[in-house]
Amino acid sequence: MPRVVVDVMPKPEILDPQGKAVLGALPRLGFTGVTDVRQGKRFEIEVPEVTEAVLAEIAKMADSLLANTVIENYTVRVEQDA
Amino acid sequence: MPRVVVDVMPKPEILDPQGKAVLGALPRLGFTGVTDVRQGKRFEIEVPEVTEAVLAEIAKMADSLLANTVIENYTVRVEQDA
Repeated sequence: MPRVVVDVMPKPEILDPQGKAVLGALPRLGFTGVTDVRQGKRFEIEVPEVTEAVLAEIAKMADSLLANTVIENYTVRVEQDA
Repeated sequence: MPRVVVDVMPKPEILDPQGKAVLGALPRLGFTGVTDVRQGKRFEIEVPEVTEAVLAEIAKMADSLLANTVIENYTVRVEQDA
């Protein structure tokens, strides 16, 4: 079954406290060399068939339900089952 | 700057209440035809350079900090800046 993935990330100009918390924890766990971490949401949406109309519908879902478009950006893409 | 993306998703056999909540809300918003929704986390990790050693390090981060490997699976991949 093809899967549509919606990735929702905080806009670059928006403070990302979760990402900063992870970034801050890394040195304490012995991890170095990471310049930045940003944390967002990933939605895997299963549909019987992927068509242009279905992708347009999912973009509307992302716009109205999955993302808060004031502070978040989203991308919609098709992922074949790995 | 190359970006390493870590996607963390609930294991298939684990109940995903957030995904079910989204799935349940879709018909009320007029969206039909979606068979399942699963929600997880997406981490964008910026590093000066992507090497095998860095990817191994990030996999260790995912294992110990970003994912709860009892109930979650994770994947690590390199994403060129879009």
